[in-house]
Amino acid sequence: MDLHVSLAGSGDLTAQIYAQLRAAVLDGRLAGGDRVPASRDLATSLSVSRGTVTAAYDRLLAEELLETRRGAGTFVASGCVPPGGEAGRRARAGAVVPTALWATIAEAAPGPGGAVHDFSVGVPDDSLFPLATWRRLVSGTLRRGRLAAGTYDDPGANRGGSRLEGEIARYAGVSRSVVASGADVVTTAGAQQALDLVARVLVEPGDTVAVEDPGYTAAAHLFATHRAVVRGVPVDGEGIVVDALPDAARLVYVTPSHQHPTGVAMSRARRVALLEWAVRHEAVIVEDDYDSEFRFADRPLEPLQSLDRDGRVVYVGSFSKSLLPGLRVGYAIAPATLTPALREAKRVTVWDGDAVTHGALADFLSEGHHAAHVKRATKVYRARRDALLEALDSTEGLGEWLEVIPSAAGLHVCALLRDPDLDDVAIAEQALAAGVFVEPLSVRHLEQRARHGLAFGVGGIPLTGIGPALTVLRGVLSSSRPGRPDGG
Amino acid sequence: MDLHVSLAGSGDLTAQIYAQLRAAVLDGRLAGGDRVPASRDLATSLSVSRGTVTAAYDRLLAEELLETRRGAGTFVASGCVPPGGEAGRRARAGAVVPTALWATIAEAAPGPGGAVHDFSVGVPDDSLFPLATWRRLVSGTLRRGRLAAGTYDDPGANRGGSRLEGEIARYAGVSRSVVASGADVVTTAGAQQALDLVARVLVEPGDTVAVEDPGYTAAAHLFATHRAVVRGVPVDGEGIVVDALPDAARLVYVTPSHQHPTGVAMSRARRVALLEWAVRHEAVIVEDDYDSEFRFADRPLEPLQSLDRDGRVVYVGSFSKSLLPGLRVGYAIAPATLTPALREAKRVTVWDGDAVTHGALADFLSEGHHAAHVKRATKVYRARRDALLEALDSTEGLGEWLEVIPSAAGLHVCALLRDPDLDDVAIAEQALAAGVFVEPLSVRHLEQRARHGLAFGVGGIPLTGIGPALTVLRGVLSSSRPGRPDGG
Repeated sequence: MDLHVSLAGSGDLTAQIYAQLRAAVLDGRLAGGDRVPASRDLATSLSVSRGTVTAAYDRLLAEELLETRRGAGTFVASGCVPPGGEAGRRARAGAVVPTALWATIAEAAPGPGGAVHDFSVGVPDDSLFPLATWRRLVSGTLRRGRLAAGTYDDPGANRGGSRLEGEIARYAGVSRSVVASGADVVTTAGAQQALDLVARVLVEPGDTVAVEDPGYTAAAHLFATHRAVVRGVPVDGEGIVVDALPDAARLVYVTPSHQHPTGVAMSRARRVALLEWAVRHEAVIVEDDYDSEFRFADRPLEPLQSLDRDGRVVYVGSFSKSLLPGLRVGYAIAPATLTPALREAKRVTVWDGDAVTHGALADFLSEGHHAAHVKRATKVYRARRDALLEALDSTEGLGEWLEVIPSAAGLHVCALLRDPDLDDVAIAEQALAAGVFVEPLSVRHLEQRARHGLAFGVGGIPLTGIGPALTVLRGVLSSSRPGRPDGG
Repeated sequence: MDLHVSLAGSGDLTAQIYAQLRAAVLDGRLAGGDRVPASRDLATSLSVSRGTVTAAYDRLLAEELLETRRGAGTFVASGCVPPGGEAGRRARAGAVVPTALWATIAEAAPGPGGAVHDFSVGVPDDSLFPLATWRRLVSGTLRRGRLAAGTYDDPGANRGGSRLEGEIARYAGVSRSVVASGADVVTTAGAQQALDLVARVLVEPGDTVAVEDPGYTAAAHLFATHRAVVRGVPVDGEGIVVDALPDAARLVYVTPSHQHPTGVAMSRARRVALLEWAVRHEAVIVEDDYDSEFRFADRPLEPLQSLDRDGRVVYVGSFSKSLLPGLRVGYAIAPATLTPALREAKRVTVWDGDAVTHGALADFLSEGHHAAHVKRATKVYRARRDALLEALDSTEGLGEWLEVIPSAAGLHVCALLRDPDLDDVAIAEQALAAGVFVEPLSVRHLEQRARHGLAFGVGGIPLTGIGPALTVLRGVLSSSRPGRPDGG
């Protein structure tokens, strides 16, 4: 019998013994019928109490990986693992295939991988997150009484909104002048689920959905999975071009505060025009305000949601940028004619979000930690953004190659390539090879003629990395010959 | 100016001051332009340090609820709240309505409400949950390095499966002889999202989906929202009646371990027949194993997933019963021909689950806490179940009125009303009025002729409550006149 158990540190010793014995069984080092050491002997050899070992054996007995034979000792159960161990276990692949909609799955764009300098878009700096405070609030929520209250609480039944939904209404009202009470808020697993629920309750197969072009491709892709006809509408310096909206559009998806990816803020005139268009065409506007809590200019323009007099706007927000993406909390704020269906769509598909995270976030908002965190983080991002803009703009910097698109908020800045013959994908690839991750603009287009540029996120790069990264990028741009790879 | 601040205990005093000032502004007790006390004065009157007060003011300044005027002090900002405070703020209701699919939203069935004795089905006893261990694992996951690793980790890119997915494969392999590696597992927000993702990738509008009748109505409802034609197939003492399956069914949803709600285990012959049927009809079987970890008889029959030789079974599981529903973790184990589409469907709709909960659960499984917890909980539930069965079966008990449907696993027991003239909904209503919550069987039917019975969950009722609850129920049954409310 090949069994080697070793204990490290003074952590949970029972857990260590359990894990090592289980691994020995599962990878075939211990076979069915093998006798395991008497708990007293193993305890002696490991210098732990016998109870520590029997507790581990009990867990393995509960899983029927071990079995006791009266008077003979403890053995590895027969037939609990296939011959050869678990390594070769794979679910059978079969003749069953997804519907045509899923037949082609886009390859994910290359990520920052091992890049030295990371200008990823849409990623906050998780080192800024107030982990100690969050841990305290999570522990508080995990106190028995408070968690029980959230157990299988039917989100559809609670039409007045949960405690978190009330806090979000207050937060969105104060910070973004969104007009809402808790009853108007539907919490979701990030902004993405908010868009999914909206599509579920509003889009019939074949309906036209208009999106910004260039735009947030994940949203366009999502609408397509709901069998919508997705149309890309051009974006200029004032935001989406309302005159170019297709008459058939039932739903218009926009990012007015900080257009994704160009960074443009939709002008007030354009906001009014878009609302009027929606009234004339009986369409719904989805306003995705994904990262405007980080703002670097004066108080921003009012969101479409608060300019709306007709109940046509669904406002979507997220805590993925101001907290952490991994916590998956977002929300939709919708007209009362839609919230029951949105709650029902959430109920049938995922029931609700994580009760612990929701409880902790409600406290985080109500105790002012969120406000304090956004203030601190904005300061850090502002410094990075200023350094980035200065380096991009200056003639010693990259101003010769790049023209920055003005923006007033958010975690990234976009710049257009001045030379119309330069290919942004090729440049991004060369930059990545040289250790700098930037995102090309052209891949964010749907049907409009692609503009070429680069987007620079400031969440993943420290202040001190910006200068060196742009020096590398400058080298890449200097050496890149004009002309697309396909010969020009 | 009407401002009263009071501090309770020695908790986070800054948070308390912040919350009370914010409430005063939001509900209109403080109006724009009102001067708030100098931080020094407020600190003195509350007997706290001045820093405690200025920290609270800083959060309110960050939110622009307060503003400082040079040399004059700190004031409530103008225009930050509408006249009358936030109470009247509601999102505008508009002309926008959901699609026809959502026009009628079923009223939720009555819940246990204020019942003295709660036989709710599908709810675990959260007092059994090892909260202290879980809190420790959550805190460990919240350590900076480990959380960062889960931040926006693209679930679609990680085709080998996450750490949690590997642990789930091991768990399902050991406890349920499911054949899978981590690459075959897709974590979801509860079993419900697993069903949603399966429907997304397999169901075209108009496709026929077969479900058990009576069955898990939430699943049937979900498939209907994907525009499937949902057909109810009868269930007998061996499980779903395979011969009654509609030829057109593309997908068959079953609960073989513990049929929901009758409790029947699907016989081995029926399992084989169902798999053969699926091969002949090129259909997919969805096997929902929602609560079989609590088993009260010998080792159960092999799941369809491990009997399947053709790759036609998607196995769905959940930790809502063995942990807590509020944590929202479930999973699908699918043939390799489907997992890329399932991961992509998850990516476009919710991205991924809560990274903290996922990390803690991976540890919970790998350290053996889950096995230990299920063992402990099974003991508790077994005692409740035995008491319930004894009371239901005995002639002094309810055997005169109810005939228990045999089952070997799970958190509830179902019993048929012997008198064909009794109406289970009426009895459940009368029982609730008398303080006992039980679920009627007839409402779980779709198109088959409804059988009348009652389902008794053992997760929400303590052992000592079972006797008194059944005594009450006996009184209700004794006094209920045969004959349905519509006149019999």
